[in-house]
Amino acid sequence: MKKVIDFVKANNNRYIEELKDYLRIPSISTLPAHKKDMKTCANFVAKKLKEAGMKNVKLIPTKGNPLVYGEWLGAPGKPTVLIYGHYDVQPVDPLEEWDSDPFEPVIKDGKIWARGADDNKGQNFVHIKSVEAYMKTEKKLPLNVKFLIEGEEEVGGENIELFLKKNKKLLKCDAVLISDTSMYAPGIPTINYGLRGLTYMEVEVTGPNRDLHSGSFGGAVANPINELAKIIAKLHNKDGKVTIPNFYSKVKKLTKKEKENIKRLRFSDKKFAKELGVKELYGEKGYSTLERLWARPTLDCNGIVGGFTEEGAKTVLPSKASAKISMRLVPDQDPNEIAREFTKYVKSLAPKSIKIKVKAMHGAYPVVIPLEDPAIVAAAKATSKAFGKKTVFTREGGSIPIVVDFVQQLNAPAVLMGFGLDTDNIHSPNEHFSLDTFHLGIISSIYFFDEFSKIKRK
Amino acid sequence: MKKVIDFVKANNNRYIEELKDYLRIPSISTLPAHKKDMKTCANFVAKKLKEAGMKNVKLIPTKGNPLVYGEWLGAPGKPTVLIYGHYDVQPVDPLEEWDSDPFEPVIKDGKIWARGADDNKGQNFVHIKSVEAYMKTEKKLPLNVKFLIEGEEEVGGENIELFLKKNKKLLKCDAVLISDTSMYAPGIPTINYGLRGLTYMEVEVTGPNRDLHSGSFGGAVANPINELAKIIAKLHNKDGKVTIPNFYSKVKKLTKKEKENIKRLRFSDKKFAKELGVKELYGEKGYSTLERLWARPTLDCNGIVGGFTEEGAKTVLPSKASAKISMRLVPDQDPNEIAREFTKYVKSLAPKSIKIKVKAMHGAYPVVIPLEDPAIVAAAKATSKAFGKKTVFTREGGSIPIVVDFVQQLNAPAVLMGFGLDTDNIHSPNEHFSLDTFHLGIISSIYFFDEFSKIKRK
Repeated sequence: MKKVIDFVKANNNRYIEELKDYLRIPSISTLPAHKKDMKTCANFVAKKLKEAGMKNVKLIPTKGNPLVYGEWLGAPGKPTVLIYGHYDVQPVDPLEEWDSDPFEPVIKDGKIWARGADDNKGQNFVHIKSVEAYMKTEKKLPLNVKFLIEGEEEVGGENIELFLKKNKKLLKCDAVLISDTSMYAPGIPTINYGLRGLTYMEVEVTGPNRDLHSGSFGGAVANPINELAKIIAKLHNKDGKVTIPNFYSKVKKLTKKEKENIKRLRFSDKKFAKELGVKELYGEKGYSTLERLWARPTLDCNGIVGGFTEEGAKTVLPSKASAKISMRLVPDQDPNEIAREFTKYVKSLAPKSIKIKVKAMHGAYPVVIPLEDPAIVAAAKATSKAFGKKTVFTREGGSIPIVVDFVQQLNAPAVLMGFGLDTDNIHSPNEHFSLDTFHLGIISSIYFFDEFSKIKRK
Repeated sequence: MKKVIDFVKANNNRYIEELKDYLRIPSISTLPAHKKDMKTCANFVAKKLKEAGMKNVKLIPTKGNPLVYGEWLGAPGKPTVLIYGHYDVQPVDPLEEWDSDPFEPVIKDGKIWARGADDNKGQNFVHIKSVEAYMKTEKKLPLNVKFLIEGEEEVGGENIELFLKKNKKLLKCDAVLISDTSMYAPGIPTINYGLRGLTYMEVEVTGPNRDLHSGSFGGAVANPINELAKIIAKLHNKDGKVTIPNFYSKVKKLTKKEKENIKRLRFSDKKFAKELGVKELYGEKGYSTLERLWARPTLDCNGIVGGFTEEGAKTVLPSKASAKISMRLVPDQDPNEIAREFTKYVKSLAPKSIKIKVKAMHGAYPVVIPLEDPAIVAAAKATSKAFGKKTVFTREGGSIPIVVDFVQQLNAPAVLMGFGLDTDNIHSPNEHFSLDTFHLGIISSIYFFDEFSKIKRK
């Protein structure tokens, strides 16, 4: 192991130079003008996988940008880890807010500044280099590795999902390793072990068959905005609990270990509230903020519109009002079941004086990998060793659809070994990534291969 | 009287031809391209007033379009009636939906078809012609008459209001006669004796200081849309009553006579609901539909907006949400007092987890002329005699600011002797006005002068 780590240390500058080359390719997936850059970038990744000693490296064509695949299966009987990442990046506008060219990386204050530095080139390059270090020194890996790096993450492309469904055998593994999330705090090694799911609904209320003058008709007929407001108000009780029948019936409680972990994080409500500019946080009674964010289902209006919304005043009693309402789910809630319960309940709240339409938009399953899972345990040990600090465990309130797909389709745990920081400006001007973290990330990955190679396979 | 009426009958065709000339002038006040037509139209009105025997006829310049004034004050000791109308019209788009040129009047099915036929050229021409008939036959009027015809009604111009405030003496009168409203049903003579007032408010709720990801933050922080919905929901109780403290404390009850009048109108809830496309009407419990529309204050959301309102789904927990909320008022509610009570109450409903801004936009006083007022009594007798049917009394749920201004500034009752129909397509393509009604309108006006000349002045 020491040899491998020493190699990483000795080659750190070269790694940074290579990362710069990776970052120079403007692989913006959402802009058609960059179509050629996507191919260039995929080829760059393939080249780096080959240089790292991966076999069977190939670009897999899709209807959109190619997937890059590579593998090293020279450890029969040993576990297999599938490493996922994405080579596409976000657009750079507004360009004038960047302190330097987004595609000409700059080193400053111990960080590398460029579009994609954190999200996700910097983070996926970590694993390519950890594999390289192993292969260059030991000529082999302690376990089997597969890489699948996509080029459509930033546009929510479905091509990887289709590929995944049709290639379960090719991608078969004992764990999926993903570095595309954030650390709890700078320098604190972090493993994310859970994501909330989602049910996204649209509700449309119709009152009269046309917009009416609120003077001539106000008081005679139900107002769709007022009625929609009443319905929304009834979706929570005064303790902040969602009132939809059966909403909580499948919700798993936090384990003792999870509760202890949350306590250990010493989350500051005060600091959080201050950062968000609110006097007081708000949510379901009886749960701490992190419990509410990570382990409790919630309901939020994402949008509402009806009637006159410009500057000034118009005395209209509108025909329609609508709202987008989404619920964040936790295991074992089922997004389709929740959509049905929502629909039934919301319709039951509508008085006869209005018409109501409820539409399910889309959903995602929640996922939690038990803290006791050998992949999580190995990842925690590895990152702790690399960073010299106790690893913390987090969950995320949002959904990452591909993670759920991996877990469900491959029946393997996902290890979200994030190296980013919330302050890295991903998706914004002046994206950057700590070079210390880049280095410790490579070492974390190396230790993970070592730790995970020792597990007993199912 | 018979001589005057006979003159009207004998001259009916000429009146129609003159009305056509009036309608041919495209006096669209909102379009700068028609600036010259406004002047032309004002001059036309002045000419017609002179032809009718009015003295001191003049165009009064304003910052916008001129007012047309004329008077006949040859009946000292007798009451004075001020006749208001407007010579400007609405735009005509979409032009392709007109069956004939909006400014080339056509007679068809006993109606005259053109922009302004009902609103308001046809209706104000009625009074110019009634005065003319009197003067041509009797050489005098039974009372004093003043005309004030404006050119900015359709653009809500404030010039007439300013003029009114500065010229109370010039405009001093015992009643203001206005034909710019509708009849309760075709052929049914109608006097409108009340208008509701208005308090228009804007409420803005701010949660976090920026739009947040509803996954990463949902459950930790108050959602401004949900909170705004809760506030709106609390503005009515389950009986449809407004919950703002002191909201009803100054509301005058309907008199026995008013209640009887409403009963007599045999308003059909079923027909009304069908026409509006709703299964059921809705409003404050314990009051009939016409009572709710005319004599009860109401509260309606006129607009709401927050978060993501485009097609599709975006998982945002927005920073802000806002609503426009207006209340219709009845005597003796004061729009400023109601704005204060609304502000206090809405602020008291806001939890600490959000910020709330409440802004008063504008207001209007309600007005009701007692059914016993001599001007109303005279108008009812006159229209009943002209149409040969019992006159009905209506109120209107909306506001007509100039009416309130006249009543308040001149301390005189307003008589809303409307000859239009809700089906006349005012403000829409194919506006028209019944020629029978035009004729009976002139006769109504003549009878009104006669009836009102007999009253005992205050």
